[in-house]
Amino acid sequence: MKRPSGKTFAVGLDLGGTKILAAVFDGRNRLLAREKKSTKPDLGPGAVLGRIAECVNEALAVSAVPHTAVCAIGVGVPGMVDTRSGIVRVAPNLRWKDFPFGKLLSARLHIPVVVVNDVQAGTTAVQHLGAGRKLRDFVCMFVGTGIGGGIVIGGQQYRGSAGMGGEIGHMTVIASGGPKCGCGNRGCLEAVASRGAIVRRVIEEMADGRKSVVHDMCDGDPRRIRSRIIAEAYLEGDKLVREIIDDACDYIGIGAANLINVLNPQAVILGGGLIEALGDKMLPHIRKSAWAHVIGATDERVKIVDSGLGDDAGVLGGALVARTLAK
Amino acid sequence: MKRPSGKTFAVGLDLGGTKILAAVFDGRNRLLAREKKSTKPDLGPGAVLGRIAECVNEALAVSAVPHTAVCAIGVGVPGMVDTRSGIVRVAPNLRWKDFPFGKLLSARLHIPVVVVNDVQAGTTAVQHLGAGRKLRDFVCMFVGTGIGGGIVIGGQQYRGSAGMGGEIGHMTVIASGGPKCGCGNRGCLEAVASRGAIVRRVIEEMADGRKSVVHDMCDGDPRRIRSRIIAEAYLEGDKLVREIIDDACDYIGIGAANLINVLNPQAVILGGGLIEALGDKMLPHIRKSAWAHVIGATDERVKIVDSGLGDDAGVLGGALVARTLAK
Repeated sequence: MKRPSGKTFAVGLDLGGTKILAAVFDGRNRLLAREKKSTKPDLGPGAVLGRIAECVNEALAVSAVPHTAVCAIGVGVPGMVDTRSGIVRVAPNLRWKDFPFGKLLSARLHIPVVVVNDVQAGTTAVQHLGAGRKLRDFVCMFVGTGIGGGIVIGGQQYRGSAGMGGEIGHMTVIASGGPKCGCGNRGCLEAVASRGAIVRRVIEEMADGRKSVVHDMCDGDPRRIRSRIIAEAYLEGDKLVREIIDDACDYIGIGAANLINVLNPQAVILGGGLIEALGDKMLPHIRKSAWAHVIGATDERVKIVDSGLGDDAGVLGGALVARTLAK
Repeated sequence: MKRPSGKTFAVGLDLGGTKILAAVFDGRNRLLAREKKSTKPDLGPGAVLGRIAECVNEALAVSAVPHTAVCAIGVGVPGMVDTRSGIVRVAPNLRWKDFPFGKLLSARLHIPVVVVNDVQAGTTAVQHLGAGRKLRDFVCMFVGTGIGGGIVIGGQQYRGSAGMGGEIGHMTVIASGGPKCGCGNRGCLEAVASRGAIVRRVIEEMADGRKSVVHDMCDGDPRRIRSRIIAEAYLEGDKLVREIIDDACDYIGIGAANLINVLNPQAVILGGGLIEALGDKMLPHIRKSAWAHVIGATDERVKIVDSGLGDDAGVLGGALVARTLAK
């Protein structure tokens, strides 16, 4: 017979191309501590692994939870992941390919590690603790560097026949002559409405001579533009940023409408860096665009809301996944 | 205790805005007879009901099946349907609204009637007898007057949280400045790739002075243009029709790619009047466009094929639905 292990704590890890976020949760999913580090993927996978381990160690130290009391670490990775083996197949923003991340991190920390896709982790959090809590059928749209999608049908995450579904950022919304996308195509939703696309447009317009407070906010270095800077410029009423964000909201609304027309979910739930920073301002605009493109749209028919989890969706999802998938 | 009823035959009815198709099937879903009539919705619901009843009676007479040997009639209707009550809520092409069609037809013929949406009927046929036979996850695209979609997930038809999903024809593929759609929006897939859209463009271009064999084929009356005429003009090498069909294939491919990126089905299965008439010619072009817009596309990853049922998908689906849903 199995004895209860006493390992009631879980660590959630949100691994992005820019930053690492680690958080410790108790048995009732209450946040005990959160630590943050820059990722620095340029230094190579080994160095990133070291930074991740440090980040976890610091979060555990701050929360005074011993390693032996942690059931598992759940990591959301921006890329294609083999959860069974813990191998990250490909993660472009980290420049990882076939990296046995789970095994290496587990060996380093002596804690079981569960590796999932970051959108899967975020969707899990939304489903169990966020705006999707009481819903059976919904779609998550995570708007960040790219645009990822989580689909929940009948209370289960649906990732398609080969686990490759949810690529909502690569729906074509401009069938010809749209801007180039990272995937090689043109006119993808991600190419016109992600934070990446927004930053690119801000930079282009500034290079063409348009004025924006963003220039000073990033000290003239466009590589330093983050969601936070875009949000501040928007809130200060910067004309260029407002125009570009408004356009992005139109497109996000069209993307939401496409998903609503095809899948008829109870809700579309928005998350990701840009929405966390500017959700209050963007949501009314996104809704207006979506209603205009949905067949028989009413607010009664489908809710478009934010995740209700703010910055914590990723780490919370990691912790939940750690609990359910760790052996 | 219930005795086996001996009612082994089923009637499938495909009700369109242009034509009524009724077919009688034996207990092993073999076609015994098929009858066709024009719908003439202008004459009003009562007249259409009469024409439908006649069509069924003729098909039964030809197949020498007595009314008492029919378990049920299954009807696919182009519109929103309440299957439980048999009421057609709204069917724009028939100009029906809240019409108690099931009850009236059943009273007329003394046979139980099951009323479903036409896309649902077609998808049922594809799933049980067509190209979807061995698949668990696939999407049907029916390209006709409009573009309808059937989604099968885990072997079950999925119509969303309120039964309003599958409106794939109203995915926006041209985010601004696209042609007007019947739904009131612009840039919907249906507005650029349905038979309706193709016919509209042929008419517009001919009005602008472009030559096409279609003009003679329809005796100068554009209202007489059907899928068959478009197909004949294409096969004769008519330059205008080829251009317009090629464009439509590009868009259908983009629509398929959007569905593949979001849902990762095992296959996208194409049906409907235009595909039945020109599938051989259109499919290679549709595939090429789709592969160009799918993330990590390979022919191995997802098949794009026709239904394998030709003109019979609708009536077959009706008969299958009649058997499973009739009480």
